[in-house]
Amino acid sequence: MSTSRADTAPSDRFVADLLGVMAYGELSAFERFAADARYSPTLHDRAVLGRMAVTEFQHYELVSAKLAEMGIDAEDAMLPFQTSVDHFHERTRPGDWYESLMKAYVIDTVSADFYREISRYVDAGARAVIERIQASDETTDVLRERLRRALADDPRLASRLALWGRRLLGEALTQAQRVGSEHAFLSALIGGADAAGAKILVGGVMAGLAEKHARRMTQLGLTG
Amino acid sequence: MSTSRADTAPSDRFVADLLGVMAYGELSAFERFAADARYSPTLHDRAVLGRMAVTEFQHYELVSAKLAEMGIDAEDAMLPFQTSVDHFHERTRPGDWYESLMKAYVIDTVSADFYREISRYVDAGARAVIERIQASDETTDVLRERLRRALADDPRLASRLALWGRRLLGEALTQAQRVGSEHAFLSALIGGADAAGAKILVGGVMAGLAEKHARRMTQLGLTG
Repeated sequence: MSTSRADTAPSDRFVADLLGVMAYGELSAFERFAADARYSPTLHDRAVLGRMAVTEFQHYELVSAKLAEMGIDAEDAMLPFQTSVDHFHERTRPGDWYESLMKAYVIDTVSADFYREISRYVDAGARAVIERIQASDETTDVLRERLRRALADDPRLASRLALWGRRLLGEALTQAQRVGSEHAFLSALIGGADAAGAKILVGGVMAGLAEKHARRMTQLGLTG
Repeated sequence: MSTSRADTAPSDRFVADLLGVMAYGELSAFERFAADARYSPTLHDRAVLGRMAVTEFQHYELVSAKLAEMGIDAEDAMLPFQTSVDHFHERTRPGDWYESLMKAYVIDTVSADFYREISRYVDAGARAVIERIQASDETTDVLRERLRRALADDPRLASRLALWGRRLLGEALTQAQRVGSEHAFLSALIGGADAAGAKILVGGVMAGLAEKHARRMTQLGLTG
């Protein structure tokens, strides 16, 4: 394996891009979830969504620290992704607390799958950060249980949340694909020099994310 | 078994009320600061306000844990204070990020002073919680420095923020007085049975809070 400057420099930039989009994604998810929490049916539920938001912020801090360690300003790394992440949130404004809960659940699980997938292609340092983020994520079970209870209490919720879940996945994948092609970091990370092969691999990752999402929706009793 | 309000000793009920208003104050401050963060001028500033919000949530969790330890449901303890705290936030919606920053700073410092004052009147267990909250509060200095820099960059901000600071203090004290008299916990905590004497003591606490606030505003170069 070559360790020449020409090989390591681009991959560093791709890792910086990956960490940048992760950092901004987490910072903005934190703000949205925290703000959405206010519309929770009970104070207990507000605290559940609040805890979820706080976990996102802690992930942001972990990623920021890694960027700082790499000598990269978190703000510089995040800026290129601000518009598209904000756009995603604008397009997926929850209509009520149940939609917020589902949004949190979908973002949480799909990005966990994505990070798990991507962590095979990054260096050990970045992989360690991704693994710490995974490990600190104890909120997923709480969200799933809360959704399951809500669906049991009100069966009419199911069709609305099924539709909403599909829309969230669609928006998330569209977003990921756009960010990936604009910044070329996804295909570069996965496929190296061969752009066509990379495209297939990226498509495979997307399909895998969609499949796992569908399985989770089915587990909730929804048609994914 | 959870203890109902009627069969707790009066001093326990006052402590439960105090912890209830603290818990709800922190939970709602968390949501407001996190939502306000979005309007920050830079991503770095967003993270500063975000950190502040997260600290509030951690305080909420500390207080909740104490309530649970006392056999009291956090939701039950918070509910009586929800309307007035929400009302305070409705009356003090920040117009921009600088006003958010000032609001965070004023709430942070005035409530720290208040808790310090009140901790003399509660039992050792509740005092320990209050002290842990104080100790974990490392954000005040960051907020003050950020405000100082903003004021140095734009001297016209000073008169607007001075006015805003006075308004925040006024609303906070009005709120505290209303909550205190509705729930009688403040005077009961401080003055025991003698209502008239308690009123004077409460007035003294309020005056002390206002004085310390004015001193901080002067340190920022504002007329408190």
